[in-house]
Amino acid sequence: QQCSFQDLVRLGSDALLKSLASAVLEKATLSCTSTSSSGSYANCPSDYSAVSCSCGNACGSWDIQSEKTCHCQCANQDWTSARCCKIGNK
Amino acid sequence: QQCSFQDLVRLGSDALLKSLASAVLEKATLSCTSTSSSGSYANCPSDYSAVSCSCGNACGSWDIQSEKTCHCQCANQDWTSARCCKIGNK
Amino acid sequence: QQCSFQDLVRLGSDALLKSLASAVLEKATLSCTSTSSSGSYANCPSDYSAVSCSCGNACGSWDIQSEKTCHCQCANQDWTSARCCKIGNK
Repeated sequence: QQCSFQDLVRLGSDALLKSLASAVLEKATLSCTSTSSSGSYANCPSDYSAVSCSCGNACGSWDIQSEKTCHCQCANQDWTSARCCKIGNK
Repeated sequence: QQCSFQDLVRLGSDALLKSLASAVLEKATLSCTSTSSSGSYANCPSDYSAVSCSCGNACGSWDIQSEKTCHCQCANQDWTSARCCKIGNK
Repeated sequence: QQCSFQDLVRLGSDALLKSLASAVLEKATLSCTSTSSSGSYANCPSDYSAVSCSCGNACGSWDIQSEKTCHCQCANQDWTSARCCKIGNK
């Protein structure tokens, strides 16, 4: 006799879903790493997104290009660092 | 004959949950975007959280207000940019 | 009569998984907070990751140590602020 997801859902969908979501999200983690390069650019690993950039020479002006590349905008930029994050599984 | 989530859980909860969590978290992604405005403030779209700010004039002093608004603290601030992220579904 | 996750999976795994993932990820949220301290260091609460740092005196040069500690690199650093995020459940 088959039982379908709908059977489970009918059993009190919201309660089931809430408990399932909590159980799954308990295992979710925000996994971050930093990369640095000399010059004005630093790249995140492919499966990460850039969430912020740090720049040498106290420079606070930066932008993020194509979601993964930090660009520090000050002249004669000595180094650039990217902070990169993704959703991980504990 | 009904089958309950508890039936499934009793079937080897941890193994089931782990495989379910992996399958679901495989679909999760950290979705980010950037917004910029002239002046000292920049806002994230409503369903995003501000994770960092970038400021013109090399200014590295900023704060985040009400989780979505970047505020650059330097005088005569020419522009402010907010980096905004949320949990997305691939 | 037992029904297994495999029964459910056989019922059209991808469709089931997609709907389950969407339902679960709907409940996921990126939960962020900021902490500040005088001096050159600021720490995130234990279950958070540092995603960016802000520094006094317009300093834009910082690094993140052991995933949770912001370090502002400029001399005579008056304050340091950490932006900290984790995966939350709505």
